[in-house]
Amino acid sequence: MNIPITSFSRIIIIGGGFAGIALAKKLSKQEAQVVLLDKNNYHNFQPLLYQVSTGGLEPDSIAYPIRKVLKDFPNFHFRLANVTEIDTENNAVITNIGNLKFDYLVVASGSKTNYFGNTEVEKHSMAMKTIPQSLNLRSLILENFEEALLTSDLNERNALMNFVIVGGGPTGVELAGALAEIKKGILPKDYPDLDTRSVQINVIQASDCILKGMSAKASQKAEDFLEKLGVNVWKNIRVTNYDGKTVTTNTDLTFETATVIWAAGVKGALIKGLDAAGFITPSNRLLVNEFNQVKGLNHIFAIGDIACMVTNDFPNGLPMMAQPAIQQGKQLGDNMVRLFEDKPMKPFVYKDKGAMATIGRNKAVVDLKRFKFQGIFAWYVWMFVHLFFLIGFRNRMVVFINWVYNYVRFDREARLIIRPYKKNQKPIN
Amino acid sequence: MNIPITSFSRIIIIGGGFAGIALAKKLSKQEAQVVLLDKNNYHNFQPLLYQVSTGGLEPDSIAYPIRKVLKDFPNFHFRLANVTEIDTENNAVITNIGNLKFDYLVVASGSKTNYFGNTEVEKHSMAMKTIPQSLNLRSLILENFEEALLTSDLNERNALMNFVIVGGGPTGVELAGALAEIKKGILPKDYPDLDTRSVQINVIQASDCILKGMSAKASQKAEDFLEKLGVNVWKNIRVTNYDGKTVTTNTDLTFETATVIWAAGVKGALIKGLDAAGFITPSNRLLVNEFNQVKGLNHIFAIGDIACMVTNDFPNGLPMMAQPAIQQGKQLGDNMVRLFEDKPMKPFVYKDKGAMATIGRNKAVVDLKRFKFQGIFAWYVWMFVHLFFLIGFRNRMVVFINWVYNYVRFDREARLIIRPYKKNQKPIN
Repeated sequence: MNIPITSFSRIIIIGGGFAGIALAKKLSKQEAQVVLLDKNNYHNFQPLLYQVSTGGLEPDSIAYPIRKVLKDFPNFHFRLANVTEIDTENNAVITNIGNLKFDYLVVASGSKTNYFGNTEVEKHSMAMKTIPQSLNLRSLILENFEEALLTSDLNERNALMNFVIVGGGPTGVELAGALAEIKKGILPKDYPDLDTRSVQINVIQASDCILKGMSAKASQKAEDFLEKLGVNVWKNIRVTNYDGKTVTTNTDLTFETATVIWAAGVKGALIKGLDAAGFITPSNRLLVNEFNQVKGLNHIFAIGDIACMVTNDFPNGLPMMAQPAIQQGKQLGDNMVRLFEDKPMKPFVYKDKGAMATIGRNKAVVDLKRFKFQGIFAWYVWMFVHLFFLIGFRNRMVVFINWVYNYVRFDREARLIIRPYKKNQKPIN
Repeated sequence: MNIPITSFSRIIIIGGGFAGIALAKKLSKQEAQVVLLDKNNYHNFQPLLYQVSTGGLEPDSIAYPIRKVLKDFPNFHFRLANVTEIDTENNAVITNIGNLKFDYLVVASGSKTNYFGNTEVEKHSMAMKTIPQSLNLRSLILENFEEALLTSDLNERNALMNFVIVGGGPTGVELAGALAEIKKGILPKDYPDLDTRSVQINVIQASDCILKGMSAKASQKAEDFLEKLGVNVWKNIRVTNYDGKTVTTNTDLTFETATVIWAAGVKGALIKGLDAAGFITPSNRLLVNEFNQVKGLNHIFAIGDIACMVTNDFPNGLPMMAQPAIQQGKQLGDNMVRLFEDKPMKPFVYKDKGAMATIGRNKAVVDLKRFKFQGIFAWYVWMFVHLFFLIGFRNRMVVFINWVYNYVRFDREARLIIRPYKKNQKPIN
């Protein structure tokens, strides 16, 4: 059924995220040619993007050069490329730098922000899925305060100081907590001319609890933490539109704001050529079997966010998070080695290692299989785990030092507008 | 002659560079209102920009929020603004955020790249005077190698791997040395498919020695260091043009290259309104007297690169470097305090503290008044001095760790194309 991999085979991996990198490491000793394609020359650690947006960390310390990961893998070739299409008939990927045939293809293209078809929201709101997006958000937040200083129009000033985060998942919650700490610790010192008490931070959640995938205890405690920090948490409210000035919802509630951060959902980063067949879920993921094979295609695999593997525990597919991606990457790597040895593949079994989110200084929630805990110890665990999963010794050191500094000094020094975001202000070189 | 400063006076400082910040610190305890204007919300440490361009340091660790410098100065107001004109008749500055009257004005607007009127060179070459420019250069260098991998045209590939640095001052020399170390330590690992031995690094100097302001010994040693690192140093050659493909010179020599870094000169960042009067030097600097007063204007001062103070030792004006800027800022601060107390100002006396440049690992040249030395000890001195002058404890720590890491590992990890530079590749968010 499966063609064995030989030293003449070419395996193409699309995407150097958690899944792609975990897979690559397993294939480093094989003789088949492996080509890794990514539109960036770096792997980035998405769970810490919110700290880049809020000036707590430099972008460079949560990114890592993909070429450096692969430098000791003689069978690997990296190319910086945008894959535009997959030609399943001719077994080729079509990219902006040319076409390339494959024997085996692994799609690990990840996910992107899901606006659920609302183009106006997409146009006016900020996303936080990539490093450039996070830097844009950092610039915008700082530019808003500089502008708030200048206007004498109270409504405009309030809108500039009103932050609306749509989505109460880990991203929304962590960002809200970080903004609340900036409000408290940095704004009064940086903007003595501004009444920073009127800064509003709102989290809008469509369902009846935040951190939906976590335990009820974690969800409740996270909400308590946020409220302690002065964040307004709005539940059972669905955002219907944002025209650049006003957020409307399915209730009477509206928000006048200059900044909407859309963290309400993600969808698979689908590639043309795989989108026509009958194996796409509503959230643009590719249905895969227990070997991560895209339905009906023996030699095309999908892993990570783009893959939708349905299990008994997860009838809608495994969650779009780092852990399933890493585990699938590793498992597929082992399976490919088995194919190389002409042995049968083993089915993937997801090990749920739990979930965690940090809300602020000494405030985190952790759900492990056996233990669920919240507060300062959870916060230490959160930090330790994130440092552990960061790639690179230098990154870990720099992140650690920044965290210690920020903790001791109640500070976030990367509050620099290096590239202004607003379109009406041309970047000044 | 000089109007005394009172608590009703408004002092405007244009520019938060070395000069502006040194001045600001001296005025922190006065009762006069001080308004500091800068087009960026950060101070940046220009001497280390070349390390940002070459992936050795993150931009955030050589920049510092101006608001944080001023946070304990109750009489200070910072505004992010582009000053477009100075209205000397009405004593007002005209900015993109409105106009503002002053009693005393200090112009510390610094300098910008001088292309000596050659618009084609300006259009096609890279400058390295600001953080965004340095990041653009970092992206371009990395993009060039990615592109060199893809082309089968040997001439094109060579042009992509040929770097031409125009100007053998400290910027040109330090950048050339850093590129040479990348060629040796990083490229062979990152680009095993590319013959990185054919990477060329050229420094073109119009006069007969590099590091012209330094001692003959330093200049000669720096040249030796560069040649040891494989850099081609071309002396007595003047670049006449660069059309995006070919560098032409005043000799038969030409260079086919995709990357020209223009470090051949700077000129004052002049502001309209002060440019009409008869006090401008050919390099757009404002002639000032020994009190840093712009000629003929008692209440308008200029300090740092934009100011041209002629002394016996420096008939063409003090050099456009950090030390004169810092010393003038401090001295003017003291003088302004004297004006506040209705005392006469003291004339500025420049203390030449020497000069230094680093060429690479264990290779630097230092000229002090009494001692001139080169090599590994000079390199340690260079590092210590640069760490000392960096603003901020966190910045120092992060820079230090990066340096130790880069030294021990022969590495530079910030080799990330976070925002692609090339116009034909649209930035991918």
